[in-house]
Amino acid sequence: MIETPTLVDQYCHGVLRTELGLGAFEAHLGRTTGPPAPGTTFFDTQTGFAVRRWCPPLLGLEPHCPPARYLARRRELGVLESGRRLLRASGTSTYLVDTGMPGDLTGPDEIAAAGAARAHEIVRLELLAEQVADTSGTVDGLLANLAEAVHGAAATAVAFSSVAGVRPGLVPEPPGPGEVRGAAGRWLAGRRVGEPLTDPVLLRHLLWIAVASGRPLQLRVGVEDPMVLGDFAAATAGLGTDLVLLHGYPYHRQAAHLTSVFPHVYADLGPVLAQTGARAAAVLAETLELAPFGKLLYSSGAHGLPELHVVAAATFRNALGRVLGDWVGEGAWSLADAQRVATMIASGTARRVYGLG
Amino acid sequence: MIETPTLVDQYCHGVLRTELGLGAFEAHLGRTTGPPAPGTTFFDTQTGFAVRRWCPPLLGLEPHCPPARYLARRRELGVLESGRRLLRASGTSTYLVDTGMPGDLTGPDEIAAAGAARAHEIVRLELLAEQVADTSGTVDGLLANLAEAVHGAAATAVAFSSVAGVRPGLVPEPPGPGEVRGAAGRWLAGRRVGEPLTDPVLLRHLLWIAVASGRPLQLRVGVEDPMVLGDFAAATAGLGTDLVLLHGYPYHRQAAHLTSVFPHVYADLGPVLAQTGARAAAVLAETLELAPFGKLLYSSGAHGLPELHVVAAATFRNALGRVLGDWVGEGAWSLADAQRVATMIASGTARRVYGLG
Amino acid sequence: MIETPTLVDQYCHGVLRTELGLGAFEAHLGRTTGPPAPGTTFFDTQTGFAVRRWCPPLLGLEPHCPPARYLARRRELGVLESGRRLLRASGTSTYLVDTGMPGDLTGPDEIAAAGAARAHEIVRLELLAEQVADTSGTVDGLLANLAEAVHGAAATAVAFSSVAGVRPGLVPEPPGPGEVRGAAGRWLAGRRVGEPLTDPVLLRHLLWIAVASGRPLQLRVGVEDPMVLGDFAAATAGLGTDLVLLHGYPYHRQAAHLTSVFPHVYADLGPVLAQTGARAAAVLAETLELAPFGKLLYSSGAHGLPELHVVAAATFRNALGRVLGDWVGEGAWSLADAQRVATMIASGTARRVYGLG
Repeated sequence: MIETPTLVDQYCHGVLRTELGLGAFEAHLGRTTGPPAPGTTFFDTQTGFAVRRWCPPLLGLEPHCPPARYLARRRELGVLESGRRLLRASGTSTYLVDTGMPGDLTGPDEIAAAGAARAHEIVRLELLAEQVADTSGTVDGLLANLAEAVHGAAATAVAFSSVAGVRPGLVPEPPGPGEVRGAAGRWLAGRRVGEPLTDPVLLRHLLWIAVASGRPLQLRVGVEDPMVLGDFAAATAGLGTDLVLLHGYPYHRQAAHLTSVFPHVYADLGPVLAQTGARAAAVLAETLELAPFGKLLYSSGAHGLPELHVVAAATFRNALGRVLGDWVGEGAWSLADAQRVATMIASGTARRVYGLG
Repeated sequence: MIETPTLVDQYCHGVLRTELGLGAFEAHLGRTTGPPAPGTTFFDTQTGFAVRRWCPPLLGLEPHCPPARYLARRRELGVLESGRRLLRASGTSTYLVDTGMPGDLTGPDEIAAAGAARAHEIVRLELLAEQVADTSGTVDGLLANLAEAVHGAAATAVAFSSVAGVRPGLVPEPPGPGEVRGAAGRWLAGRRVGEPLTDPVLLRHLLWIAVASGRPLQLRVGVEDPMVLGDFAAATAGLGTDLVLLHGYPYHRQAAHLTSVFPHVYADLGPVLAQTGARAAAVLAETLELAPFGKLLYSSGAHGLPELHVVAAATFRNALGRVLGDWVGEGAWSLADAQRVATMIASGTARRVYGLG
Repeated sequence: MIETPTLVDQYCHGVLRTELGLGAFEAHLGRTTGPPAPGTTFFDTQTGFAVRRWCPPLLGLEPHCPPARYLARRRELGVLESGRRLLRASGTSTYLVDTGMPGDLTGPDEIAAAGAARAHEIVRLELLAEQVADTSGTVDGLLANLAEAVHGAAATAVAFSSVAGVRPGLVPEPPGPGEVRGAAGRWLAGRRVGEPLTDPVLLRHLLWIAVASGRPLQLRVGVEDPMVLGDFAAATAGLGTDLVLLHGYPYHRQAAHLTSVFPHVYADLGPVLAQTGARAAAVLAETLELAPFGKLLYSSGAHGLPELHVVAAATFRNALGRVLGDWVGEGAWSLADAQRVATMIASGTARRVYGLG
C-alpha cells in the first residue's frame, strides 16, 4: 500500500569481484572478522535468514533454501551475473559509495553499471589523509596537501565520511595550529605505510576541514552512544554543513533525538536493517519516534556481497510499508502523509541533502 | 474496553494567551527553540501528525486536515474558545501546573477555569531561588530567605520541581554549610537579574531543602540516563519524601528500574506520549516492564498549546487501552486487574502521592 | 506450533524450604529487599501478574485468582508438594544451580528430586573466596588455597559465576602478583566473617583464575551496560573459556552485540522474562536482533519460589513461540529454521557449552 518506487542508498560500499565459497560468503554475514563460535554459523543470524529469505528467488530458487544450494546457483551464474541480477532487483536508483574500505571491491562506476543505476563517491577522510601522508615529507607539506586534498575532493565527492572521528571524549572545538602541527609531526615520524590514522588531534582536524568544505559530513557512530556528538553538533550548528550520523543502533533513539534538536543533524538507517532482519520494522519504528521525518535517510551500509544491498533494500521496503501501513490502518496517520514520508526517507531527503537533482 | 474516566495530569504548564500564526504554532511542535531544517517542517513529526489526528475533530474539522486550515479554524474561534474546547475534551479533571516556565502562559486558576477542572501549583525550585536572590542583599539573607521561601511554598504548592538539579556527576549528599555560603556569595556577586541558576552546589542545596519539606519532589531527567540519580535516591530513602522522575525517555526503562528498587521513587510518562504519537503504545509498554504499576503517573508535560494537553491525554488513553487490552485479550492479565491498573496510572496514584483527596 | 520439548535452565537458584505467608511470598516478587511503597504491593507488577496467570492452574485454581486464595491453596498442599507440582510442570529437564545465594535454599540434588530432573552446581567465585578466607591464616595460604579451591571446584562444577566482578572501570588484564598479595593482605587483616568480598583486585584475580580453569564463566551484568566488559572479552578471546553474560536487561541489545563480535561470549535470558511477564516476547525479540542464534541460552534466574521457575519457563515458551511463530507466519523465517533455533536456545546451546551430553 505504501510504495517506495525508488531508493537512494546514501551510504554503501562496493561488492567483491571474486567467486566466493561457502566459508568466504558466510564470513561476510558476521559482525566480526573472526570465525563464528564452534558449533555455530553466521548463517544462523537475522542477516543469514534474511539473505535466505530475499535472495534465492532472485536467482530462481525457493526462499530459505539451504546455503550450499544458494551458493552453488550463485557460482553457476557467475559473480558478475548474479551481482547484476541482485543489484537490479534492489530497486536502488542511486548509490552513494564510500570507497574507503580495504579489499578488492567494485567502485561507483562498476556498481552503477551492474545495478543500472547512478553512483557517486563518498570520500573517507581517514583514507584521504593516509594517502596524503604517503606522499608528504614535511609537516608543512602534509598540512597544506591535506587541506588541498579535501578541497579538491569536495569538487567531485558527494560527501565526506569519517569512521574513526567519533569517539567518547571528542573535543568539540577544532584543534589549535600548534596542536595540529605537533600531531602531524609525530604521525609523519612514526607511521608505517598502510597503518590507519588514529591520532585524535588529526582526526579532529580532518573533521573541521571537512566541515569547512560545505559537503555533508557522514560520521560513523557504531555502537557508541551518539550523545558524545552533542557538543560537536552544537559547535557546528549554523555553519551550513550537514552532519549525517551513520549506524546508530542500539542508540538509534539517541541519534533520532539529536536530529530533532539540531537542524543540521541527520541520521541514516544503515546496515541495522539487514542485520536485524525480521526485526527491522521494530527498529525502524523506534527511530521514527523522535526524529522529524525529513531527517532520516535510507542506506544499506552494505559491503562486499550484493546480497547485503538486496537485503537492506527489501527489509527497508517491507518494514516501512508495514510500520506506516499499520499507522494508516489505525487512523494515526493519513495515507497521503504516509506516502509522502515514505518517499522522503527512501529518496527525497537524500536528494535534497546531497543535491542530487 | 479499558476505561480511564478521568485523568490527573501530574505535570504540565499553562497555555499561551495570544493568537498564533502558522509559524508560531509550528515552533511549539519542535523539540528545540530553533527553526526546522531547510526543506522540513515540525508538522512532519509524530507530534505534528498526532495534533492533526486528534485536534481538528474537536474544532469541527476532519482529522489530518492541512495545518493551515486547522489554524484558520482556531483563529476563527479565538484562542480562548478553542482553548476551552480543547482542554475540556481532554478528560483531565486535575492539572498540576509547573509555573516556572518563562513566557505569557496561563496560570493554574486560568487552566482550571478553561478546562472546567481543578488545578494546583508546582513550584519550580530554580525560579524560586532566582526570585529570592533578586531581593536578597547578603549571603545570610539569601540563605535564610531561601529556606523560608521553600517552607512557605510547601504550605500551598502541591509539589516542588527541579529542572536543572539532575545532571551527570550529581553528588548524593547535601553540600556543607561552608560550601553553600561560598557558592551563594559567588552567585550573588556575579549574577544578573534573569540569569538562570546553574551552580551545582546551590542546586543541590535546593534539592535537599525541598526534600526536607516533605512535599513530593519532581526531578527532570530529560534525555540523561536516570541511573545518575541512583545514589541520590539511596541517600533520600526513608526520609518520607517521594521523588518523581519526569520525562525519562529514551531511558524510561532505567527510570522504571529505579521505581522498582526504591519505594519512594516514582516516574511519570510526560511529553513522550505526545512526542512519539503513533508509537506511544510501544513506549508505554516498555515503561510497564519493570515498574510496579503503582509507581507510574500520567502527565502531559504540555506547554504552550492546549493541543499538546489534548494529544498527551488522547495518546495516553489510546495507548493504555491498546496495551492493556491486548494483554487481557491474550490472557496475560485479567480484565479487572487491567481496569484497576489503568485507574491507578490515570489518576489514583497521583491522588495518593500528592494528597489530592 | 514452535515446540520446546525440554528446557535446560542454565542459571537458577534453589527454593525456600519453609511455608510462606502472604507477606513473605510477596517480598520475593519485588526487585529489592525493602518493602513496597505505601499503598502498593509487589503483586501489582508484571511478575506478580505472571505468577497469578501461570501458577494457580498448576495447583488446581483458576488463573488470576486472588493472591490470598493462591497462598491458602499452596499451604494446603504444603511447600514440598506444591514445589514438586510447580517444578515438574515447568518442563525443565536440567537445572544449573548457583549455590552461592544466602538463605535456606534447596541445593541441586533436592531440586533435581523435586523437579524430576537433573541438576548441576555452579560455583560462585565470591562465596568460594570467602570460604577459603575463613580458613586461611596467611596471604600465601589464602592465595594457594584459592587457586586450589577453584581448581578443585572445576572438577565437579558445571560453571563458575561472578556477581560482583563486572563493574564500570573493570581493568581487562589480570592483576600483577604484588597487587594481588597486597589486596589479599588487606582483605585478611580487615575482613569479618560473612562480609562479602568487594575488593576489585581480588575480584579480578578470581575472574582470571576461573578463566584459566576452562569451565564457562558466568558474569552477572545486572543493570549495567555490558559494554564495560568489551575489553575483558577482548583480553580473554582465544583462551578457550566461554563467558556467559547473565541478566543484561535493559542493556540486552548491547549484550547481544557482544555475543555477535566475540566467539566466546554468550548471553542468557535470565529473570527478565519472569520480571517483564506480558512483555517477555518483546524483550526476547530485541535480544534476537543482533545475537547469533547459537549464542543465547535460556535461564530462569529464579530464586526462592518455585513459582519463579515456572513463570520463567512459561513466559519463555510462550514468548519464543509467539515471536518465532510470527516470523514464520510472515515468511521471514522457515518453520524448520524456527524449530531448530527454538531448540538451540531452549537446551541445545547449553548442552554444548556446558558439555551436558
